[in-house]
Amino acid sequence: MIYDNIMISENDIIFKFLKKLNFNKEETFHFKNDGAFFKQKPNMEIVVTNDSITESIDFFKNDEPESVAQKIMTYNLSDLSSLGAVPYAYTLSLSMPKGIEIDWIKKFTNKLLYLQKKYNIFLLGGDIGTTNQIHLSANFFGYVKKNLIIKRDTAALGDSIWVTGNIGDSCMGLLKRKKKIKINSRWQKYYINKYLFPLPCMIGSKIINFTNCAIDISDGFFGDLSKLLKKNLGADLVFSKIPISKNTKYLIDRKIVDPFFLLNGGDDYELIFTSPKKNDYKIKEIAKKNNYTVSKLGKIINKEGIFLDGNKIKDPEKSFQYFF
Amino acid sequence: MIYDNIMISENDIIFKFLKKLNFNKEETFHFKNDGAFFKQKPNMEIVVTNDSITESIDFFKNDEPESVAQKIMTYNLSDLSSLGAVPYAYTLSLSMPKGIEIDWIKKFTNKLLYLQKKYNIFLLGGDIGTTNQIHLSANFFGYVKKNLIIKRDTAALGDSIWVTGNIGDSCMGLLKRKKKIKINSRWQKYYINKYLFPLPCMIGSKIINFTNCAIDISDGFFGDLSKLLKKNLGADLVFSKIPISKNTKYLIDRKIVDPFFLLNGGDDYELIFTSPKKNDYKIKEIAKKNNYTVSKLGKIINKEGIFLDGNKIKDPEKSFQYFF
Repeated sequence: MIYDNIMISENDIIFKFLKKLNFNKEETFHFKNDGAFFKQKPNMEIVVTNDSITESIDFFKNDEPESVAQKIMTYNLSDLSSLGAVPYAYTLSLSMPKGIEIDWIKKFTNKLLYLQKKYNIFLLGGDIGTTNQIHLSANFFGYVKKNLIIKRDTAALGDSIWVTGNIGDSCMGLLKRKKKIKINSRWQKYYINKYLFPLPCMIGSKIINFTNCAIDISDGFFGDLSKLLKKNLGADLVFSKIPISKNTKYLIDRKIVDPFFLLNGGDDYELIFTSPKKNDYKIKEIAKKNNYTVSKLGKIINKEGIFLDGNKIKDPEKSFQYFF
Repeated sequence: MIYDNIMISENDIIFKFLKKLNFNKEETFHFKNDGAFFKQKPNMEIVVTNDSITESIDFFKNDEPESVAQKIMTYNLSDLSSLGAVPYAYTLSLSMPKGIEIDWIKKFTNKLLYLQKKYNIFLLGGDIGTTNQIHLSANFFGYVKKNLIIKRDTAALGDSIWVTGNIGDSCMGLLKRKKKIKINSRWQKYYINKYLFPLPCMIGSKIINFTNCAIDISDGFFGDLSKLLKKNLGADLVFSKIPISKNTKYLIDRKIVDPFFLLNGGDDYELIFTSPKKNDYKIKEIAKKNNYTVSKLGKIINKEGIFLDGNKIKDPEKSFQYFF
């Protein structure tokens, strides 16, 4: 297909903008074959994640291309982390309207390049197509130590429940973006940045020997936590232990925002994980060493549901469902 | 996201329609994790391909869901074959308008199930999203013997040039679909079937020890053949050797259709490959044993371009370009 109206061919998109993303890796055949291959590493397994984003659904029509690049990366890297994987490479299916500006493609791919260097990954190849909304689908691949892939439904009674970073700031950014909340302009910038440029928490591969299960928060803290809780197990949480940024705490205290709303919605891309109590010290040590913030929120109990200061949360599983 | 208007949740789509496609394989974590993993096989490499299809671009708005399923499978399986791979598994990013009918999803996934059994593959997982056009992106994975992945730009002087099956029937179906040609109703059915339900030619893994390079025909015979020809090499072809179905030959003879049009367009999903002349017998033997038709069209020469009965074809490389 030829993007006639902007005089750019698919070939131009590939060799002017995407080629730089393959880092000349032999696995990619330099984008000159019908596919790519994976290098296997001894005692490692390769995992795959798949997340897609669509204009007007996962981002607003005129969001900057750098934000779109950040989101498709973070959604997938966050999944890799929750599996305990070290990122390796990815494929990208890039579907764009015919009238897309070259400048959009340039900014988008430059941001991908920046993030690839940051997370040490390269583009294996992919597919370019025409759609009437921008739509990106990526498969990310990572290495995990053999037989140590972190699962979701393997929390154990008595496990400590941990979360990384802060919860709720991305949701605040979305509220602001949707003009559903009034806050001062300095804070606006902070929150909108959290929403537009979410960062994955890559602690997963570091804690792989010490954790029982993990999930990334892509659909709200309560909803995602509930996916870790199999039959007969529940979570006993202490509200004051839930990490909330200073700004957000201020707004909660003044009843400008409902903390339950923030805990039910929002894609924070932090990790929730559980680990045997005996590993508490080790978890803290790993987090400190690698510059991650972790908070211990409570423990796994033998009573179904999520309890916050003893009160059961209603319908947390009504949050979004996931195929991956 | 909830498909409110049809009262079907993402969870329902996954567990009522997609779950059957994972064949209970442990690699999929039963769709209950943030990703999946690959089983490695000794002396094998894993390859990946990525092809996407979009409503109103790659298929017509009301094409039957079974055709959409067949196309996303064939596009990717054909790539795997051209790499010499045996199909293993795939991920599927499924984006649909909110108003999609349950019946569409049911028919689509039933056809995937049928094809999965036929080609011995399973669904690793994926992603479900909302778009205003149906859009599917799939990553397919296959196993190839170590160091034997078939490449594109490794044809050698003197190689025999082969193609599988017949060329042009899918293009005839598209012409008919676009009402650009008049043919009798029995032939219409034949051609439209070739266009709606293309079949991949899975000979790739069988000829891996005897071939120098391969490509699948997804963008026209001449265009794809030209991608096999590196600098200083060309193709010397005999027109009468190009396999064309009896029906199409009849129409060509009566000047109802131009053979060059058929050879420049059309996604036949047959394989073009080259192999040392000494392997001619072996190639024929493998094809016969595995019930594939192969035709030897000519040979690789040390003169750039594609020559048909001695006449140079103009601009074959102007066909579509590929990232994968």
